[in-house]
Amino acid sequence: MTDWQEITGGVTAPRGYQAAGIRAGLKPSGLPDLALILSNVEAIAAGVFTTSQVKAACVDYCRQRLLSKQSARAILCNAGQANAATGSQGWLDALESAMILGQELNIPSESVLLASTGVIGQRIVMDKLKAGIPQLVAALSETGSDAAAEAIVTTDLVTKSIALETMIGDRPVRIGGIAKGSGMIHPNMATLLAFVTCDAAVSPTLWQQMLSRAADRSFNSITVDGDTSTNDSLIALANGQSRTPALTEMGADAEKLEAMLTAVCQHLAKAIARDGEGATCLMEVQVTGASNEQLATQVAKTIAGSSLVKAAIFGRDPNWGRIAAAAGRAGVPFEQESLKIQLGHFLLMENGQPLTFDRATASAYLKQAADSAMPQGMVATDMSNDLSGNRSQIKTQRLDNPVIITVSIGNGNASGKAWGCDLSYDYVKINAEYTT
Amino acid sequence: MTDWQEITGGVTAPRGYQAAGIRAGLKPSGLPDLALILSNVEAIAAGVFTTSQVKAACVDYCRQRLLSKQSARAILCNAGQANAATGSQGWLDALESAMILGQELNIPSESVLLASTGVIGQRIVMDKLKAGIPQLVAALSETGSDAAAEAIVTTDLVTKSIALETMIGDRPVRIGGIAKGSGMIHPNMATLLAFVTCDAAVSPTLWQQMLSRAADRSFNSITVDGDTSTNDSLIALANGQSRTPALTEMGADAEKLEAMLTAVCQHLAKAIARDGEGATCLMEVQVTGASNEQLATQVAKTIAGSSLVKAAIFGRDPNWGRIAAAAGRAGVPFEQESLKIQLGHFLLMENGQPLTFDRATASAYLKQAADSAMPQGMVATDMSNDLSGNRSQIKTQRLDNPVIITVSIGNGNASGKAWGCDLSYDYVKINAEYTT
Repeated sequence: MTDWQEITGGVTAPRGYQAAGIRAGLKPSGLPDLALILSNVEAIAAGVFTTSQVKAACVDYCRQRLLSKQSARAILCNAGQANAATGSQGWLDALESAMILGQELNIPSESVLLASTGVIGQRIVMDKLKAGIPQLVAALSETGSDAAAEAIVTTDLVTKSIALETMIGDRPVRIGGIAKGSGMIHPNMATLLAFVTCDAAVSPTLWQQMLSRAADRSFNSITVDGDTSTNDSLIALANGQSRTPALTEMGADAEKLEAMLTAVCQHLAKAIARDGEGATCLMEVQVTGASNEQLATQVAKTIAGSSLVKAAIFGRDPNWGRIAAAAGRAGVPFEQESLKIQLGHFLLMENGQPLTFDRATASAYLKQAADSAMPQGMVATDMSNDLSGNRSQIKTQRLDNPVIITVSIGNGNASGKAWGCDLSYDYVKINAEYTT
Repeated sequence: MTDWQEITGGVTAPRGYQAAGIRAGLKPSGLPDLALILSNVEAIAAGVFTTSQVKAACVDYCRQRLLSKQSARAILCNAGQANAATGSQGWLDALESAMILGQELNIPSESVLLASTGVIGQRIVMDKLKAGIPQLVAALSETGSDAAAEAIVTTDLVTKSIALETMIGDRPVRIGGIAKGSGMIHPNMATLLAFVTCDAAVSPTLWQQMLSRAADRSFNSITVDGDTSTNDSLIALANGQSRTPALTEMGADAEKLEAMLTAVCQHLAKAIARDGEGATCLMEVQVTGASNEQLATQVAKTIAGSSLVKAAIFGRDPNWGRIAAAAGRAGVPFEQESLKIQLGHFLLMENGQPLTFDRATASAYLKQAADSAMPQGMVATDMSNDLSGNRSQIKTQRLDNPVIITVSIGNGNASGKAWGCDLSYDYVKINAEYTT
């Protein structure tokens, strides 16, 4: 199932896509703030959006568009203003944005999907957006993915991008993705956004099913601070330009495609967790022995989201008691006599009872895993955080050496994973001090 | 419904109760660590316990006892060792503790209820417990509530105690309570414990119903860090020594008693939230306009538990966007056009849209509310935190000036409240650094 390879190119790696990112002046910092992804032909479109009752205009807009038509040509994303809690005027701004871009691209505005990230309660600065759109369209390029990835970030320390390729029959199929997000929601600078492109031919229903499952195993399995944004959006296009046979139901090829889609989403999701506000390391929680995957994931997410576990990891403290307590309160029934907990390769608890282990060595494991996970050349305090998403330096990050917590809760066959990060002073600093 | 008055005496304020607290040597610090509450006659007993799958021996023990017999004479509580994740030996230790105390008091061991708090995975130091019990029984006194309240704390900065009195007919009825807790679960020093005494005469079924409802409106409506302990226990005794008519169903007198019971539990719950690890202020969230109380409380708890809201309060930042976002993700359906948010008397959002307000004045409100809520003569860093619950100074706290967040989500008639505290650097410090 993992017979794919990583390639370059992000969302423009699959055939038939262009992208662009420009400075339209929406962010007070003057950094890139307007991004566009374009498929050369109408592409099957699927989406997963925030479950919050308080939603941005772009989320309502995309939901309605995808209900009436499961395809699109373009995704337009602005950073700087979230266009959430902006009432009917915000809705009109969304409609106008799509219309202007449609005119500039000479496509129906119904083929435009929208995403916004930035300050809640602020409308998009429409005159700057309008002035920027011709420039944005002019900048479209088959190598424009990185520019787009940079234009969608706000408080992120790094851009998030990936592309994978596999063979279906004798033809290559590619999936690329870019994402942004640094807290589930950030101060007023909200949001997890992820855009995925694919050149396979796949039916709308199957593509949406695949995307929903992939989201559950990736973006819905990460937690930074337990908060959800008004603007969270995952949009995936599939334009058929690989010229592979159309997939309409699950089967060997569809499974291959879904596995690769899941891998793309997991990479982006882990990159977001690693870039969590104030985080110094990535945490991966693996839960086995559950009766089904959903319950396993629920336990894994509860552990990954526990403030006490997160603070312990920041303190490089092999505190199995907090892991056991978090597992216990996950709302998933299990026998506490079955509980087994491992930190890296250290067995800390078995049959529900603590084991003797070398605390210093286990702490050293945490220290090593965490330290090597630090982006090279970057320290956790190496960041300037302002409302406008002012990041002068976009750095790279390593995801290959997370802190691994393994928990078994019984004899079931199902397993699940979740990802998170540690809880540091900087999380409090970033979220307590940004305006006062 | 609030025709009661506050009186002194804690759990020994109601008639027919004695209490004691001594140093048995269970805490390495040498501070008081063994507490006893005794009713002079068999009392109706009700309990609410942790919902965690990982439970302490004392929780299993109390649950079994209360299933077979809904009355008790004594509550024995040790601090220092949680007796959780201690397997069958922990269970035998619990049984033996009850037996030894029963013998010393010359009552059946079935009339003894148990609670523990301390390090998860550690058995109670039984030889010290055994040696301490005669001394504990000898120390029983009708003014022993404060000594008991001191002996149950671990990392608490203050003891928590209250007693209220009302009239049923022409006779006074009293309810007293003591509690401990500083995080829902603390490092390895777990747990919320609360013990309530009452001298009313009330049937077991009605008493349990009243207690369950009161717990929902108090202890189940506070959040410090979202974590739940293996040992959380609320136990309430009603011994009938007020010589008031026996209450067997709801009615005017029963409602009066339940309202007072709820007030006792809310006072203790707020005291725990205010004493949350690293907290600098108490936060009260009031939600109105919901279709039922449970949904209102769910929204209130989500706001009070949001890391982003908590960090904003610590930063004295009137950040309505985070409050709106937390309300939106609470899992309670509402029209975002109905959302109204107030901070103290400042209206920040109405009809789902942000209002212009004076940020400096609103921030000053937060600062004033928070600063006046600080225990007099105490600063947030004025604490020594060690595994054994080493608190050399137990201070008092003020609960009368919380930060008040008011949210309306529609036109429903139901309202609900939740309490929490802010998220400070000290929370991270306490939970990241205690062993390493």
